[in-house]
Amino acid sequence: MSFRYPDGKLYTTNEQPRSPIPTGSGNRGMRLEDDINESIAYYRRENIALIHKKPTPVQIVNVDYPARSRAKITEAYFRQASTTDYNGVYHGHYLDFEAKETRQKQSFPFKNFHDHQLQHLSDVARQQGCAFLIFRFVASGEIFVMKATVFMQLKAESTRKSLPKDVISENSIPVQSRAFPPIDFLPAVERLFFR
Amino acid sequence: MSFRYPDGKLYTTNEQPRSPIPTGSGNRGMRLEDDINESIAYYRRENIALIHKKPTPVQIVNVDYPARSRAKITEAYFRQASTTDYNGVYHGHYLDFEAKETRQKQSFPFKNFHDHQLQHLSDVARQQGCAFLIFRFVASGEIFVMKATVFMQLKAESTRKSLPKDVISENSIPVQSRAFPPIDFLPAVERLFFR
Repeated sequence: MSFRYPDGKLYTTNEQPRSPIPTGSGNRGMRLEDDINESIAYYRRENIALIHKKPTPVQIVNVDYPARSRAKITEAYFRQASTTDYNGVYHGHYLDFEAKETRQKQSFPFKNFHDHQLQHLSDVARQQGCAFLIFRFVASGEIFVMKATVFMQLKAESTRKSLPKDVISENSIPVQSRAFPPIDFLPAVERLFFR
Repeated sequence: MSFRYPDGKLYTTNEQPRSPIPTGSGNRGMRLEDDINESIAYYRRENIALIHKKPTPVQIVNVDYPARSRAKITEAYFRQASTTDYNGVYHGHYLDFEAKETRQKQSFPFKNFHDHQLQHLSDVARQQGCAFLIFRFVASGEIFVMKATVFMQLKAESTRKSLPKDVISENSIPVQSRAFPPIDFLPAVERLFFR
């Protein structure tokens, strides 16, 4: 099942099969979150890295206990997350990131990354964790991985509402979209933080 | 508000004030989770480490959108977590742990740590993350921090259903309970993994 958050963002449960959005050919237009989830599941299976998506934060107000069946939550509300969606461990190092996509062709809106996510990534960087962002341009299928600190500096210096694609390209590592894993971002993380 | 999971574990929301259970004097008997949450909040404020508790995993089935108010979840179910409750970053290192307490006086039941938690901590250790356990004996107020891999080895070698306190003591670092932060476990982590 799926529904929309108050901010319009689509929510789907983890059990949901991949839902292609018909925007083009091949892998383009598949939901970014599905591709990231498949990629981290691949990394876990192959013992390359251990990364999990955090559960959606929910404030539970009321629970029923129907006879002979499991507890049913009958009243709950979405809470604002205080972190990013993804974190984990890679050769002992702490990884933390957020992934977003845009349908704009030439630039990436700053507002796609929320303030609480950037604040958290800034805190991660201060603790010497690997804090990064994954950008996808839906139309072209291009994917980039950038240090979160670099993004925040570019945002602070900018007078615009979005970051031009050529600026992103100059300050990040490109990742080729492929069949499996769909987004192999760890080599880019390796280059950004450990070389 | 609070209620019990089907397994009898008490659930309280994060917004809940500390709920003392009258079992003795001083800090003893305060819920372990509250003390851990206060301690990690202290570590975050002081920029000592960035550790968060993960949200309770919930499968959302139905959501209402009442006019002029926020989205209300009207049907949802608890899901089994696939990780531990706590992870974070400390000087670039990935930390992951679970904390449990017992009212038994001389030994700690193995079953207090669930299989999926130990499996996850084993995966963390394989990725060179710092995987550890925090034990609290409610009656005496004693607290111990042990490497998860050591616990799993002791469990594998044991023919009993619980781990004697003297074995825990010999294989872990004790932590003194104090006023603030209530459980200062990071020096023990430092000794276990980095010295």
